[in-house]
Amino acid sequence: MTKTRLCRTFQTAPAAVPRDDSAKYLRSGLTAEGFSAPDWLVPDLEDGTAPEMKDEALENVRELLPEYAPAFSGEIWPRVEWAYDSESLRERGVEQIETLAETVGEHVDGFVVPKVGRLEDVNAAESAVAAAGRETGTDIELAVIVESARARSDLREISKFGHESLLTALVFGPVDYTAELGGREIGKRPDWSGLCEALSNEASANDLLSIGGPFDRLFRERAGVTFYNGDGYADHVEREARVGLDGSWSLHPNQTAQANRIHLPTTDELRTAVSKIETFVEAKGTGTGAVAIDGQMVDEATLKNFENTVETVAIVHGMQDEQTKERYDDGLLDRALALR
Amino acid sequence: MTKTRLCRTFQTAPAAVPRDDSAKYLRSGLTAEGFSAPDWLVPDLEDGTAPEMKDEALENVRELLPEYAPAFSGEIWPRVEWAYDSESLRERGVEQIETLAETVGEHVDGFVVPKVGRLEDVNAAESAVAAAGRETGTDIELAVIVESARARSDLREISKFGHESLLTALVFGPVDYTAELGGREIGKRPDWSGLCEALSNEASANDLLSIGGPFDRLFRERAGVTFYNGDGYADHVEREARVGLDGSWSLHPNQTAQANRIHLPTTDELRTAVSKIETFVEAKGTGTGAVAIDGQMVDEATLKNFENTVETVAIVHGMQDEQTKERYDDGLLDRALALR
Amino acid sequence: MTKTRLCRTFQTAPAAVPRDDSAKYLRSGLTAEGFSAPDWLVPDLEDGTAPEMKDEALENVRELLPEYAPAFSGEIWPRVEWAYDSESLRERGVEQIETLAETVGEHVDGFVVPKVGRLEDVNAAESAVAAAGRETGTDIELAVIVESARARSDLREISKFGHESLLTALVFGPVDYTAELGGREIGKRPDWSGLCEALSNEASANDLLSIGGPFDRLFRERAGVTFYNGDGYADHVEREARVGLDGSWSLHPNQTAQANRIHLPTTDELRTAVSKIETFVEAKGTGTGAVAIDGQMVDEATLKNFENTVETVAIVHGMQDEQTKERYDDGLLDRALALR
Repeated sequence: MTKTRLCRTFQTAPAAVPRDDSAKYLRSGLTAEGFSAPDWLVPDLEDGTAPEMKDEALENVRELLPEYAPAFSGEIWPRVEWAYDSESLRERGVEQIETLAETVGEHVDGFVVPKVGRLEDVNAAESAVAAAGRETGTDIELAVIVESARARSDLREISKFGHESLLTALVFGPVDYTAELGGREIGKRPDWSGLCEALSNEASANDLLSIGGPFDRLFRERAGVTFYNGDGYADHVEREARVGLDGSWSLHPNQTAQANRIHLPTTDELRTAVSKIETFVEAKGTGTGAVAIDGQMVDEATLKNFENTVETVAIVHGMQDEQTKERYDDGLLDRALALR
Repeated sequence: MTKTRLCRTFQTAPAAVPRDDSAKYLRSGLTAEGFSAPDWLVPDLEDGTAPEMKDEALENVRELLPEYAPAFSGEIWPRVEWAYDSESLRERGVEQIETLAETVGEHVDGFVVPKVGRLEDVNAAESAVAAAGRETGTDIELAVIVESARARSDLREISKFGHESLLTALVFGPVDYTAELGGREIGKRPDWSGLCEALSNEASANDLLSIGGPFDRLFRERAGVTFYNGDGYADHVEREARVGLDGSWSLHPNQTAQANRIHLPTTDELRTAVSKIETFVEAKGTGTGAVAIDGQMVDEATLKNFENTVETVAIVHGMQDEQTKERYDDGLLDRALALR
Repeated sequence: MTKTRLCRTFQTAPAAVPRDDSAKYLRSGLTAEGFSAPDWLVPDLEDGTAPEMKDEALENVRELLPEYAPAFSGEIWPRVEWAYDSESLRERGVEQIETLAETVGEHVDGFVVPKVGRLEDVNAAESAVAAAGRETGTDIELAVIVESARARSDLREISKFGHESLLTALVFGPVDYTAELGGREIGKRPDWSGLCEALSNEASANDLLSIGGPFDRLFRERAGVTFYNGDGYADHVEREARVGLDGSWSLHPNQTAQANRIHLPTTDELRTAVSKIETFVEAKGTGTGAVAIDGQMVDEATLKNFENTVETVAIVHGMQDEQTKERYDDGLLDRALALR
């Protein structure tokens, strides 16, 4: 079940909401198509689901995954309950991991564990996921939400641990983080740019994915009309892409459609990557180890970025070819796919 | 003497100035009332006092504390001399700590030690304070000013040490810090936002207080008139509050009055906190461990932020009820105080 | 060959370019005068030189240094090939270091090693430089370019190692850094302010030099006319000077002339420094250890910044007296030089 890592979009969907169809949002996420289909769908058993609906939420996940997961194009990562400073929440989290691994483990790519603390707490979360994977014979990974001062303090150690464990992704959680630091919302919100830099850096240094935090100003109002805040979210995602975060958190199919597009290589990026690799492969056929392309030395190491671009496009194509066909012309896409 | 930690305002007052009444500013700080009374008054034996007046400064502190400290509502934290790179200054600091602890130790809550270096230097400062406390049977704590590259480099270790020692607060000192790094004042000053983020984070991760640096553009001039720069200081304090610094440095009673207000919970913040705790306490009477309030799960852990808000208000009320009575209506204040 | 550390300008010059005179830029850098003469000239054997010209580049350095280095006012720091993730590039780097040390070692102050990784990789680079220095009996130092996530992650450890080794300078490499983190150029570029703060801090904490990254928007166009982008580069250098970076990367003699000026103490800065030291020296003659000057306590420790200012001016004067004579009047300059 482990695939090359890709998570342009991390869309949370409350696993139960107080409606006639309590699984409405979960089902909607699992059946989204085209650019609205998230790379990772995160059925949310934690803060997105009201306390009195936790059991129904678990039930919804158990019911819907067998039905919809096989046709779902992305990965499925339920978010369980957890908190470094609450033993009872950690126990609930372990139970939720065990239950889901036993019942629908073959449809689950990993678990998202929120509110982790220092390295030891991340170790505990990883042990729970590893144990569940062992017992059910499935290959389940871990993503953690960095939203405590302790996790930020230990970020470097946590990330290094990720390099050699099931920990796969670091996700930022600005709301709880700001609350824990005692940040007050006066005028505007802090952008935590130091933390975002560090998250991107440590993820890159240890081959993890890094994912930004949610953007909750979904709608805005002007002259009496309320409309989807596409500008606000684009600014948010572009800021994340600029510092090298691999993906963005989505709270809505519209956000997913935007972030999927922004985090997909542009035509120019793909064309450059394909050309470099083709030239390198050709030259290598003639026996040279390193090759000069357009006056730049290219060897296995420098080729890595180009291969990542092609790999990203190929994975997206395998998941949702509507996306790749919309963006690239057939010739370029075929050349890219031929390189794998 | 150790109280719940609160330091909205860290007001330094030179302990001796070249005037007829050399204790003018010290006395003024110790007798301030209402919102002008600082949470922490810092009689300054270091850079605020001229070299030739150090003895008189020490004398002033020894004379004024017995007279004014008993009626002073906040805490008293003298700043002594110290520098990680000067043995003679460290010796002077130890002497000043010893002298003040012996003579007026019962009026002193802690000592502020500036220009600390790496962890070992903070250890030395803490040992000096601990020894003074032991010998005089008083309970005296330590605050350090982070204003050297070495202290910034060791911030995480220093903060962890704070978690298990007398170290209580981390204060930023931008002027010396910028000088040590060789920062040049060209156009505008650096805001050291990375350092401020880290200070807030490490303080939160280790239950320490974090306090911002001084704002020295006290006055500004427009059209020939010079006036108090309230806008500039408000921006400064709000920026600090936003990233979760617990308090702000004040150089003037006007600044103290502003920062005390900005760092005091708003009516809305207090109302929310009181409601959540009341509902939780009520529900707990019926035997439930965790309670759903307004669709959000509340347990002992998540209650902590609300309890902190109420505790802050209660402490401020105990110190300066003019402040709390001005801000909150009687009903809300009574409900808050009843919860302790 | 080790001098007091000074590197206002770090000018890279491709060691070979595809022109009739392939050493054109290298010669131009080695013969620049006045404010256009860089403090450090960096003959570039790495990315600035095309793969098929590497041999010629090495040849050019070996030919030109004996001819021009003796009259060159600054230091000479060739940049060799290296990459933490490519064994073959590291081997080439070691060969280039050995070859240049053996053939022109007496003209080389140090080597610039790019794309270093974690501490272990920096250790390896330093060993290569140390070995070359030992074998040739020359005193050659090391500068590394911080442009990988791993180097950023280990920055504190790398800098501490610098405190006790041949490592002398930390240089930022934003282009490769952004690429490694997967940063996308959308609208504007990230300014990596957290990294720049950390670079300046760790350099100061360990007595290393810190140098900013290149600014490649050399020219801009307006109303059909293309001209040198002096405004853009001034903003870039001033931002670096503000956070205490010691020097700036230059890609062009015009940039060198600007950065040399911005990083040279102003007349006011020099006048203050000279006065403080003169007063201190005079007072010390009378037996006092610490002296009050303008109401500020000055001792050996606080004198350090002033001495650095005077030292910087004296070194620049020794290298290029056109620069110091242009900026300071004779009286002030003579007083400064008399203090050494």
